Amino acid sequence: MSNTFVFGHKNPDTDTITSAIVYAYLKNQIGHSAEAVRLGDVAGETAYALGFFGVEAPRLVTSVEKGQPVILVDHNEFQQSADGIEEAHILEVIDHHRIANFETADPVYYRAEPVGCTATILLKLFKEHGVEVPKEIAGLMLSAIISDSLLFKSPTCTEQDVKAARELEQLAGVSAEEYGLDMLKAGADVSSKTIEDLLTLDAKEFGMGDYKVEIAQVNVVDPQDVLGRQSEIEAAIHERISEKELDLYFFVVTDILNNDSVALALGKMANKAEDAFNVVFTNHTAVLKGVVSRKKQVVPALTEALSN
Amino acid sequence: MSNTFVFGHKNPDTDTITSAIVYAYLKNQIGHSAEAVRLGDVAGETAYALGFFGVEAPRLVTSVEKGQPVILVDHNEFQQSADGIEEAHILEVIDHHRIANFETADPVYYRAEPVGCTATILLKLFKEHGVEVPKEIAGLMLSAIISDSLLFKSPTCTEQDVKAARELEQLAGVSAEEYGLDMLKAGADVSSKTIEDLLTLDAKEFGMGDYKVEIAQVNVVDPQDVLGRQSEIEAAIHERISEKELDLYFFVVTDILNNDSVALALGKMANKAEDAFNVVFTNHTAVLKGVVSRKKQVVPALTEALSN
Repeated sequence: MSNTFVFGHKNPDTDTITSAIVYAYLKNQIGHSAEAVRLGDVAGETAYALGFFGVEAPRLVTSVEKGQPVILVDHNEFQQSADGIEEAHILEVIDHHRIANFETADPVYYRAEPVGCTATILLKLFKEHGVEVPKEIAGLMLSAIISDSLLFKSPTCTEQDVKAARELEQLAGVSAEEYGLDMLKAGADVSSKTIEDLLTLDAKEFGMGDYKVEIAQVNVVDPQDVLGRQSEIEAAIHERISEKELDLYFFVVTDILNNDSVALALGKMANKAEDAFNVVFTNHTAVLKGVVSRKKQVVPALTEALSN
Repeated sequence: MSNTFVFGHKNPDTDTITSAIVYAYLKNQIGHSAEAVRLGDVAGETAYALGFFGVEAPRLVTSVEKGQPVILVDHNEFQQSADGIEEAHILEVIDHHRIANFETADPVYYRAEPVGCTATILLKLFKEHGVEVPKEIAGLMLSAIISDSLLFKSPTCTEQDVKAARELEQLAGVSAEEYGLDMLKAGADVSSKTIEDLLTLDAKEFGMGDYKVEIAQVNVVDPQDVLGRQSEIEAAIHERISEKELDLYFFVVTDILNNDSVALALGKMANKAEDAFNVVFTNHTAVLKGVVSRKKQVVPALTEALSN
């Protein structure tokens, strides 16, 4: 049997890629043979972080064999994981999301905490195991916290995340605010992104009540950079809806400077988005004031609206 | 809203009752208002442990209201939990079982480790929070480890469980071997137990493949004490099978002195028990050499046989 694979979710973001690298590093330090892999392309923001700290991206793996030992980071829902995950041997999960559509045949090590970022939990694990955090590993963990918290502005961000980030910026030798804004801007540059990119780079599928919902999110400096292409985007979304038999496609364009989002809702359950956020959608779009977090704001609101 | 309830599974065993008491104690020490409750009757072994260390049993609760804050210990599968658990607000889970049929709307604190007993994880949490373990709390944790590991004989027992038990016997001021055998014998006295007791005191329901399976276990000093009543037991099991629409009822009578079990298998999928354990059942029963653990030996074997 090969090494244990450590990976995050499909459509990897910065926390998912860096947490795989960071936790594989820790496992190897404490005597387990583990390899970080990724389930999809490295996004611009993540590439910036990896480049800055001089760390290579993990290799791409899209499916796992029956019995393959795996460790999941930054996710647990099977539909967000590798193809074949049902038949893999899940040894551990380190995560900070809700738990759903997850199951094992045997007892596992499962460590989830309601914090803003997987990296915040990983820093605790370094301490529990008495392993030092090298500069580049600290830099990757800091990048993950900045990314998931939009530089501490997201409601998902907890005191523990801020405390971890302050400790990590010392170890990494950078200023969270200065480095962080450069990193977020690198990720928010949509000028070179295709419509396909916008809808797939950070998309996740969810079961809500009896419905199948996909929520894609993209960070921008100006929402108009994306919404200027609305009609093409809608056409592409309609294709995805019929291909994947979705009941709702919810596209969230998040303004990282003002910390608001514009949402575009399509699909036969799109009218429920009005109930979820108590706003009126015009031309399928609405501004969601203060909404920046898919996990803490979008998913719970839609789940409730679709369960009633 | 009331206190946070801390509880283990239905048909509570010693780990479930004591872990609720112990973790509620820890939560209160670190500033959270929590109350241990139980979902069913206190069994003989558990009563012995509570009596020995002078601790009262938690009060009985059978269902939880919508939105009730709860912490689950020693279980996660909803069918083993309180009625109404789907609508409760699950804040935390501390467990050592496989994860299945569990879901939350929001991120939770989930701490599962593949060790033999919840108490072993709880002892770590006392250390992480820097809280001292009082004598009677140590005694309850020790009782849980002895119970779940059958005095360190079960294959579920890990080095971490033994290490925790050795530490706890110092704190509790008892010998694990001496106190433990008395406690196990108190639980293995089936002379006063009704057929109903035997089938319900430690029964758990599982989804395996497409099938619904109930597995009951009883510890005895001599399996004949139970199997002498086989025809009455079979009649009662057939009633349970039709009431609950079970595909398999698997009754495990475990000899705590020799560390073997006799199994009784009934229901339309009973023939799969032969594949699961590679033995021939005669008159619906078979000796399972070295099998003492439902979790580590019985559940995985039946799950595999029923999934093929």
